[in-house]
Amino acid sequence: MKQKITLKQIAKELDVSISTVSKALKDSEEISIDTREKIKAFAKFYNYKPNNIALSLKNKKTKTIGVIIPEIVHHFFTTVIGGVEKIANEKGYNVIICSSNNSFDKEVINMEMLASGSADGFILSVAKETQLKKDYHHIQETINQGMPVVLFDRVIDELVCDKVIIDDAKGAQTATNHLLSLGCKNIAILTTVDYISVGKLRTRGYFRALRGFDIEEKEELVLKIEDIDNCESEIDEFLKNKNVDGIFAVNELFAVTAAKILNKQNKKVPQDVAVVAFTDGILSKHFIPSLTTISQHGENMGERAAMLLIDKLEDDETVAEEYRTVIIDTSLVERQSTKKAD
Amino acid sequence: MKQKITLKQIAKELDVSISTVSKALKDSEEISIDTREKIKAFAKFYNYKPNNIALSLKNKKTKTIGVIIPEIVHHFFTTVIGGVEKIANEKGYNVIICSSNNSFDKEVINMEMLASGSADGFILSVAKETQLKKDYHHIQETINQGMPVVLFDRVIDELVCDKVIIDDAKGAQTATNHLLSLGCKNIAILTTVDYISVGKLRTRGYFRALRGFDIEEKEELVLKIEDIDNCESEIDEFLKNKNVDGIFAVNELFAVTAAKILNKQNKKVPQDVAVVAFTDGILSKHFIPSLTTISQHGENMGERAAMLLIDKLEDDETVAEEYRTVIIDTSLVERQSTKKAD
Repeated sequence: MKQKITLKQIAKELDVSISTVSKALKDSEEISIDTREKIKAFAKFYNYKPNNIALSLKNKKTKTIGVIIPEIVHHFFTTVIGGVEKIANEKGYNVIICSSNNSFDKEVINMEMLASGSADGFILSVAKETQLKKDYHHIQETINQGMPVVLFDRVIDELVCDKVIIDDAKGAQTATNHLLSLGCKNIAILTTVDYISVGKLRTRGYFRALRGFDIEEKEELVLKIEDIDNCESEIDEFLKNKNVDGIFAVNELFAVTAAKILNKQNKKVPQDVAVVAFTDGILSKHFIPSLTTISQHGENMGERAAMLLIDKLEDDETVAEEYRTVIIDTSLVERQSTKKAD
Repeated sequence: MKQKITLKQIAKELDVSISTVSKALKDSEEISIDTREKIKAFAKFYNYKPNNIALSLKNKKTKTIGVIIPEIVHHFFTTVIGGVEKIANEKGYNVIICSSNNSFDKEVINMEMLASGSADGFILSVAKETQLKKDYHHIQETINQGMPVVLFDRVIDELVCDKVIIDDAKGAQTATNHLLSLGCKNIAILTTVDYISVGKLRTRGYFRALRGFDIEEKEELVLKIEDIDNCESEIDEFLKNKNVDGIFAVNELFAVTAAKILNKQNKKVPQDVAVVAFTDGILSKHFIPSLTTISQHGENMGERAAMLLIDKLEDDETVAEEYRTVIIDTSLVERQSTKKAD
C-alpha cells in the first residue's frame, strides 16, 4: 500500500512552496492552470486527500477543538489555552494544540492536518510570518468550507469570522497615562517591529496618551526591537545617554531587561525611572521590584474564544452567519515599579 | 445519522468510570463479564469505534506525534515540546499536543482520541492523578496494540517502553553538595508530597548528600508542600524560627517564594541563606538575586524523546522490541543566590 503523502512532501517533490500546493489543491486562480493540474495529478497519484471539510465533517463530529498558537514556550499563549481547556471540559470537548512556531508553512500544515478529521473547528492566533506575508488563504478556505474559526490576540482584519481581542491601543494608553499621571515627562517605549499587529497598536496607544497630555512625540524615544531573544544589547544601547523617567514596554521581557540595565547604569526603578509592562506574567509578579502591568486576562480570552467556537459548532445553520468580535477589557495591575515615594 | 459517541458519554450513560469503560472495551478481566458485555453492547449500538490501533494503523501512517503533558502553563513542559518540535520538523513529522491537566480521566480520553487515527505514537509525561491511582492500563494497552510510547520526566517503572529521564536524585545531590561545599550546615529542603515521583527522588538525593557529609538528617528541615499554588503560607510558617543557612527547592517557584519570605524576615540571600533550585526557567534567570539552579535541559529531553519515538516508528519489526532509557545529564548553573562573599 502506498503511504499517504503530505502537503510538505508534494511541495518538496515538485519544488514549489507549501502555499502553492495548498492553493492549487483548492483550485485557486492565483496559481496557473498548468501548475494546478500538475499538482492535482501528483496528489491524486499519491492518494493525497484534499481537505473537503464541509462535506466530510457535516456528519462526523469529533467533539474536538483545534488550537493553533504561534509559540508554545510563551506564558500568555499557554494561559489562553488554559481558558480554552476550562470551557471545553465543561462542554464535553477535547482540545488539541499545535504550535506554528511563527512559521507560515507550519501554520498551513497544522491547519490542514487538524481540519482533515481531527478537529471540528479552530481557535487560532496567527504566526508572525503569516502577518508579514499577508497570506491568509488557508484560514479563508477553512472558513469557506464551513469549519468555524475563532481568531484571538493576533487577528486579521480582512477575515470575516469570530474574534477575541483586547484593545491593545487602549491598554497601552492606560499604561502610558499611568506614567504621565505620576509626573513622567520623558517616556520611552520599547516595542516590536511594525508588522507585529499588537506591537503597532500598542505604539499607537502610547502616542495617543502623549498627545492627551500635550507632550511632543519624539522618534528617538521609540525603540522597535527586531530580535526578541537578543533584546539586551539593543535596549542597552538605546537607554545610554537618554534621560528617560518612564518606560512603557510592550511585553514583560523587555521591561525586566530594561530594569536590569537601568540598575547597572545606577538608575533606580521606580525612584528614577518608572516602568510599566504589557502582559501580566510570572516574571512581572516575581521580579524585584515587582512590575506594574497591563493584564491581558489570557485565561478569560481563551474562555470567550471557546464559547464562541462551541456556539458556532452547536448552533443551527440559521444563526451561523453572525460573527462577533469580543473585546476583553485590560486592566492596570499596580505594583512596585511605578510606586513613587509618598 | 447517529452522532459518534465518546468514551466519556458512555461512562456517563452507564454511570461507571471512564477507566471501567476503557478497560471493558479492551476486554480486561478486571471488569466483570456482565459489565463488559453491557458496555460493549452499548458502545456497539452507538457505533463507538474501539481502539484497534495495531490493525488500523499498520497501513495508515499519519506522520504525527502525539504529546500528552500534565500541564500546559508550565515552562519546563513547554521547553520539552520545543525540543520535540525541533526534531519532528527535521524528520517531517507534525506534533499534536494535549494537556491532561493532571487528571487521569483526561489523560485516558486524550490518549484514546489521538490513538484513533490522529497520531502514530506518543510522547507522554503522566498526570499526578495517574501516579496517585497507579492505573496505567491505558498506556499499557496502547503499547500492547503496537503503538510506540516514550515516557519522559514523570515515568512509570512498571511500564516497558522507551523512557527519557533525568537522574533526579543525582541532580538533587549535586545541588545539596553545592550548598554543603559552601559551608552550609543547616540545609532545608522544599519538596512536594511523596506520590510525585520527581519530588520523592529529589528528596532522596538531598538526604544522600547530607549523609556524604556526615550531617544528620532532620525531619524538621523537610517541608512537603501539598498545594503548589498556595505555597507561600506553608513556606512562611516553615521558615519561622528555623535557623537555616541553605535551602534546596525542588522547583524554582518554591525557591523564589522562599527568597522573598527570607527578605521579609530580614535574612539576605545569599549572605545569610544560600538558595539552589531545581529547574532552570525564566524566573531563576531574571530574579534578583538570580538563582543557582539544576538545569534539566528540557529541550534536550524533548529532542531525545522525539528521536526515540521516530526510531521506533521507522524501524523494522525486527528491532522494535528493544527499549531504551535515556538519562539526560543535569548540570549546576551557578548564579548569585549561592555566591558567598569572596
